[in-house]
Parts: sequence; structure tokens; C-alpha cells
Amino acid sequence: MNRLLKAATCEFIGTAFLLATVVGSGILAHKLDAGNVAVSVLAVAFATGTVLTALILAFGSISCHFNPIVTLASAIRKEFSWSWVIPFFIVQIAGAAFGVVIANLMFDLPGMTIASTPRSGFGQWLGEFVATFGLLGVIFGTAKSRASALPFAVGAYVAGAIWFTSSTCFANPAVTIARALTDTLTGIRPTDVAAFIYAQGAGATAALIIFGWLFAADQAELSKRQELDRLYEKEPASVSH
Amino acid sequence: MNRLLKAATCEFIGTAFLLATVVGSGILAHKLDAGNVAVSVLAVAFATGTVLTALILAFGSISCHFNPIVTLASAIRKEFSWSWVIPFFIVQIAGAAFGVVIANLMFDLPGMTIASTPRSGFGQWLGEFVATFGLLGVIFGTAKSRASALPFAVGAYVAGAIWFTSSTCFANPAVTIARALTDTLTGIRPTDVAAFIYAQGAGATAALIIFGWLFAADQAELSKRQELDRLYEKEPASVSH
Amino acid sequence: MNRLLKAATCEFIGTAFLLATVVGSGILAHKLDAGNVAVSVLAVAFATGTVLTALILAFGSISCHFNPIVTLASAIRKEFSWSWVIPFFIVQIAGAAFGVVIANLMFDLPGMTIASTPRSGFGQWLGEFVATFGLLGVIFGTAKSRASALPFAVGAYVAGAIWFTSSTCFANPAVTIARALTDTLTGIRPTDVAAFIYAQGAGATAALIIFGWLFAADQAELSKRQELDRLYEKEPASVSH
Amino acid sequence: MNRLLKAATCEFIGTAFLLATVVGSGILAHKLDAGNVAVSVLAVAFATGTVLTALILAFGSISCHFNPIVTLASAIRKEFSWSWVIPFFIVQIAGAAFGVVIANLMFDLPGMTIASTPRSGFGQWLGEFVATFGLLGVIFGTAKSRASALPFAVGAYVAGAIWFTSSTCFANPAVTIARALTDTLTGIRPTDVAAFIYAQGAGATAALIIFGWLFAADQAELSKRQELDRLYEKEPASVSH
Repeated sequence: MNRLLKAATCEFIGTAFLLATVVGSGILAHKLDAGNVAVSVLAVAFATGTVLTALILAFGSISCHFNPIVTLASAIRKEFSWSWVIPFFIVQIAGAAFGVVIANLMFDLPGMTIASTPRSGFGQWLGEFVATFGLLGVIFGTAKSRASALPFAVGAYVAGAIWFTSSTCFANPAVTIARALTDTLTGIRPTDVAAFIYAQGAGATAALIIFGWLFAADQAELSKRQELDRLYEKEPASVSH
Repeated sequence: MNRLLKAATCEFIGTAFLLATVVGSGILAHKLDAGNVAVSVLAVAFATGTVLTALILAFGSISCHFNPIVTLASAIRKEFSWSWVIPFFIVQIAGAAFGVVIANLMFDLPGMTIASTPRSGFGQWLGEFVATFGLLGVIFGTAKSRASALPFAVGAYVAGAIWFTSSTCFANPAVTIARALTDTLTGIRPTDVAAFIYAQGAGATAALIIFGWLFAADQAELSKRQELDRLYEKEPASVSH
Repeated sequence: MNRLLKAATCEFIGTAFLLATVVGSGILAHKLDAGNVAVSVLAVAFATGTVLTALILAFGSISCHFNPIVTLASAIRKEFSWSWVIPFFIVQIAGAAFGVVIANLMFDLPGMTIASTPRSGFGQWLGEFVATFGLLGVIFGTAKSRASALPFAVGAYVAGAIWFTSSTCFANPAVTIARALTDTLTGIRPTDVAAFIYAQGAGATAALIIFGWLFAADQAELSKRQELDRLYEKEPASVSH
Repeated sequence: MNRLLKAATCEFIGTAFLLATVVGSGILAHKLDAGNVAVSVLAVAFATGTVLTALILAFGSISCHFNPIVTLASAIRKEFSWSWVIPFFIVQIAGAAFGVVIANLMFDLPGMTIASTPRSGFGQWLGEFVATFGLLGVIFGTAKSRASALPFAVGAYVAGAIWFTSSTCFANPAVTIARALTDTLTGIRPTDVAAFIYAQGAGATAALIIFGWLFAADQAELSKRQELDRLYEKEPASVSH
């Protein structure tokens, strides 16, 4: 129980900081960019990548999903306990919303406003599909080949994906819901939220199939892991990367 | 004694370089940014993050707090000797002021000028609370899970936090005091200094409570550490990360 | 066979993401840069460097050439099986083209358009020579001295080389061919493709000679490696870095 | 002999790439920055930091000083053979000049032009003093505490120091001489070269005194190293980091 409480606290704080970073950097940059919005996107990508790396390093010993899709995919891959999935969803979404409120308040805006930025259309849905597919590929692949580099791989990928996907890489249902609560540069109109989440789900499904085959654990490796789990009576190992 | 002298020298030089970086990059960037202040903030965030990482790597074998709040929090966590706290405060503040003077002189300005930039209001105080809370979370968490990544985690966090906090992440009383001594982009009006430091103190208090619980050392781990300390008769281990 | 299929899949997906990054970030940045094209190049360099590092980390346990010249040079250095060279060429070029199509579609452009940007002349050919020569030097040198840092070395080098070479560092025949399929910032006129690839080939030849001598494996090292290969009956070791 | 030839080749190629990066990125950025020179400095700092890290990783197993002051300081610290100092000076300066010529030619400029940018005055000399002092501190400190992080520490420091020193961090006599050979953004008027080098020498002297004391090898450590050197009959260990 204590372990779940600690993990949930990490998910809440981490997701809150992630959203405060995305929304806060967008507000500050857009106030100063003198009409050159490319500089604002550069600021958001730079800040999000650096802070995400720092958060995964900081919370990595306890829990650092910060993303319902990562939680769900880990459960499907049998690397995460199904009984923790719903609690994680709740704290991730609550943490994300809390982070947006904090960002709004830091910049002297009302705690919550409804976003009016339309984000819709085939191109952006394809963007979310690609962004989520790639995110899970980077997580599964790096976790297999070089787990210690995961904080850097995820931070680097997300920073870059903000630039190359037309949707600016949400790739996270908690992020998508929360960003409807700020009418600033990084907001998303509530009516566009559902389609983004569907596209993320489709990308995650494709990732589970393709990367599940590509990065399948060897049988030998699996047996060894299970034996270790038995020996140490460990709780689900994948909570901490 | 020799050990304290070396540690204090590292704190003086490191904090001086940190401030020279923040203030110097702000002066150069703002002179060249053609009215696009977002580019200047990007320059300050980029330079501060990279130099901070380099400084922690360079001085890590001796001492690399560069921040009275980190020193105080480490003492409260029993990871740093109380008898070194006041000397550290003094050299950190002196080093910070020295770094600002050097930055001013490098750009052919008077060594000290009194800042006129107002930095005040609830939003910015909340920004300092959040920035300091997060900084200590990143330090405590990474130190526990992956101490070798600390220089990268701290540099990355601060670079990002300059963007997402409305106060541009001072998160350091020595930095706050010293930045009153330059009337350039990164200055702070002397009358606004105290409130920033209170907000930092509040954020640090919250961090000590929450992260103290979250990243508490296991009992087993603590005993092992104490035994090692006895064996090697080491001076306070946390001076060097 | 299964191993080749997995390696080819990694090459296809990785090269596709690489191209989606270069082309996609160029489209988004150029749409927003308010006439300051230097900001767009910064965006492309930043995104390409970060994503490339993430891709090499993710696919490193299976295959991460993403570049026909790297594949060919590895075969010439006897670190890669000649029988896999042609299949790798095919999937790298197909993946690169697929990535460009995805990038175009994400930004609501036709899947393929013919680029009209001229990239020609002695200066740019020299740029491709230098870019490719340096890329192979970084790969061979880092692989010898510090293989675990390869993802960071390659990502960092390419990000920087986009800035310092007049040709903005293609250094990859699959990339060059595919970038003829988008009439956006990062496109290249089809008639200019062949000369770029010749220049890359010349740079690679110089690199094989000079770095082949500089980073030659010691005789002792080679024998040890061959013995290990015999013991484990491994397939070509260099597929995964 | 063969070892010196390989080390000298690395110094020539590495220093050439370093200069091609500084000068080339300055030319490209300034052509595109639409009058916002801060973006150009950001490009130069970003490219120089990333490429320098990649070069140190690539050449680290053989030789990666790329800077006469690093060579001289290493010899004074007895970590580098005096008999190699003059050959290193020659190839570093020749490599630097060669890199500038290549950069000019890549951008369709004459191979050599005489720089006309004045860089002079107390502020900039102080900048060079500070830049060089800090560079050696980062090298000596990181080499002692965490040698494997040296490529990242040096790249990060230089990228940041380009921003915070008024002189934009030359900190290298070979770089200073070679940058007189290009009349572009990063050039330096020949008459200003000598004073920059004096300031660098003064900064290096201060660094040798202060950091020599701070990062002195323990007696125990030194004996162990000497014993190892005797056992393996190694040539000077510090050529490769």
C-alpha cells in the first residue's frame, strides 16, 4: 500500500511538472517572441525535453510513467500490475490538470480557462499516431538495449517530436485532457480532445504489435527475470525503470 | 581545515561562474536580439544549463552546492555538517556577487549597478515556490536513484525551469541577492529580493517534507552508510555528490 | 532469417523517422519563422540531433545504420556481412521515402511533390565531402574508444554539422534521394541528387583510408574478437552497436 | 614515432573540424538571421558545443587537446611529454588554419581573407581570461572526478561560455590565430590577436595555480599511477583522456 501511495505521488507530481513546463514555457515564450512563433515552439521543445529528462531521473527509482498510455501498454506487456492501472490513470489526469492550473496562476491568469485553439484534421491525427508510435518504440527499445539511457532517450525524442509532428506531439491522454484547461499557446479546444486520444490509442496499438515483436524478451531472459522475481518476492518491477 | 578551505573555494568559484553565466549571457543576448526577448531567454536558459552541468562535473569531487538552500536542506537531511553551513553561506553570497561584478566588467559596464527590474506579485512568488520545490526534488531524487546523472539532471532542470516559471527560476538566495547588483536583463530590484527568498524558503520546506518522505533512505541503506563512514572515518559525505 | 527481418524492420522504421524529423521540422519551422530562416535551421538541427540520438538508443540492440554509406563502410571494414548490404540499401531508401511521405501528409501536403530547391556547386559538394568524412570519423572513433557514447556522439555531430556545412549535412544517400520528394524547406532538386551522392562517396573513401589507419583495431584485439565470435557462433556483431 | 604521428593527425583533423564548425556556422547563420544576431550566436554556440563533444568522443582514445594551452598546461602538470609540445603546437595551428580555409571554401568565399572585426578592450580581455580560466578548471576538475564525462563537460562549458564572455570564448591560441583568416561573423582583426593570446595565457596561469592546488592528485593516487606506468611501460597517459 505504501508503495502504491509513493508511486501515485510521483505520478501526480511528475505529470504536474510536465504540464506546468509545456504550458508555462508556451505562455512566457509567446509573450516575448515578437511574432516569431518558431522561437516559441523552440522554447517549448527545449524546456519540455530538459525537464522531462530531469523528472525521469528524479522519480525513476519509484515511478515515472507520467502517461496513461505508457501505463496501459506496460500492463499489456505484463511489465506492470493491472491492479495499479486505474489509480495511475486518476493521479496522472489529476496531476496534469493541477500542473496546468499552477502554470496559469504563475502567469497571473485565471486558474482554468477553456482553450480555443482548434487542433483537428487528418494531418494532425496522423501526427498523434506517429508521435505515440515513436514514443513507445523509443521506450520499449531503449528499455531493452540500454535502460540507463531511458531518461535521455525519452527527453530527446519528445523534444524532437514537438518539432516534426504537425500536432506538436501530445502523445499522452492526460496531457491532452489537461491542455484543454488553458486558453494559451499550447491549449487544445475541448471538442478536439477525443479525436487526439483515439489517434494516440491507434498509434499505441500499432506500437504494441510491431515493437512487441521487435523487442520481445528472449525466452531465456524471461525465465531468468521470473526466477529473480520469485527469489526477491518483488512487486511489479517495471514501476521503476 | 584544508578540506573546508577547498570546499569553500569550490563554492566561491562555482557560484561566481554561475552568476557570470546568467548575467553575462543576458547582457550579450539582449544587446543582439533585435527586440525578440524570447531569443534572449533562450540564450540565458541554454548557457545556464550547459555551464551548470559543467561546473557540477568539475567541482563534484569536492563541493558543488552553489546554493544556500541546497546547503541548508542537506544539513537538515543530516547529509551535511552543520558546522560548515555558515561558511558556505558566506562564500556562496560573496562568490555570487563577485560573479556579477565580473560579468558587468566583461561587458564594459560599471562593476556594480543597482537593478531596476521589478519582479514581484503572487504569480512570480508562486514561480519561485515551484522552481525551488522542483529543484530540491530533482536533487534528492536523482541523488537517490542515480547519483552519477546529477550534473545532467540539475543542468537540464534549471534550463527548463527558466522557461516555465514566471519568475525565470532564481531558486537560490545567493543568486537572488547578487542579481540585485546589475541593472541589466537579468537584474532584480533590491526591494523585491526578500519576497523571492521567502518564497524559495517556502518551496524548500515543502520539498523537505514531501521528498523527505518519498526519497527516504531505507533503514538498511542508512546503517550500511554509517558503517562505511565509521570504517573510513570520512568527513561529511554529501559535500561531494 | 528472422534476424535479418528484424534488422531490416529497424532500418526501415528508423530511417523513416529520421526523414520525417528532418522534413517535418523544416515544414513547421518555416511556416512560423517570420522570415528568420536561421531559426528554422536551428529547429531542424535541434530536432534531428535529438531524434537521431533517441533512435540509435532505441534500435541499437538490433540495427541502427539508417544510412547506406554506414552499411557499405562497415562491410568494407569487415564489421558487417556483405550478404546483408543490398537488403539494407533497399529498406533504407524505402524507409526514407516513406518518412518523407508521412511528413508531407502530416502537414496536409500531397504525399509526394518534386523538390525545386537547387543545391549545387563546388562549395556544397565540398560540404557533403566534409560532412560524410566527419560522420564516419565520429562513428569509427567513438565505436573504438567509447561505444556506449555512440548515440550521443552521432546525434551531436549531425546537429552541429547541419550548421557548419554549406550543404546542411545530408551525408546519407538514402536521405538525399528521399528529400527530392518534398517541395519544402529541406527538399533537393532531383537533378542535384547524383552529385551530392558522389561527394558523399568521395568523403567516405577518404574516411575509410584515414580513419581506417587511425582507428585500426590492434592485432591482439582482433584475435580476441574472432575467438569470441567462434565461441558464440555470433552473426555479424556490428549490426548492433 | 607511429604513436606521435597518430596523435598529431588527430590534433590536425580535430582542430580543423573545430574551426570549420565555428566559422562555418557563423557564416550560414549570419546569412539567414534577418538581423537578429542573437540567433546567430545561438547557432554558433549550439554547433560548437555539439561538435566539440563529438570530436572529443571520437578522438579521445588517441589525442584530443585541439588547443595549445591545454597541451602546455598538461605538460606543466607532468601529464604530457614535453617532447611532444612543439609538434602539437604546429599541427594545432596548421589544422585550425586549414579548418578556416575549408569553411570559407564551403561557402564559396576565397580560401583566406583578412578579418576586419575589431575585438579589443579591457572587457574582452577579461572575457578571455575568465573563459580560459574556466576551461582549464572544467578539464582538470572533471578529469579528476569523472573522466568519462569530460567530452560532455567540455562541450557544454564552451557552448555556454560563448554566451557569457564578452569575447565569445576563444580560449585557444590556435583558434585565435586561425580566426584572423576569415572576414566573416566570427573573424578577429589580426592586430587584436596578440592581446587575446596574452589574456588566455594569464587565465591559464591563474588556473594552473588555483586548480593545481584544488585538484592536486593525492600522494597515494600518484604512486599508484606511477607504478601502473612502470608495469605497462606506457607512453604519456594524458594524450588520451
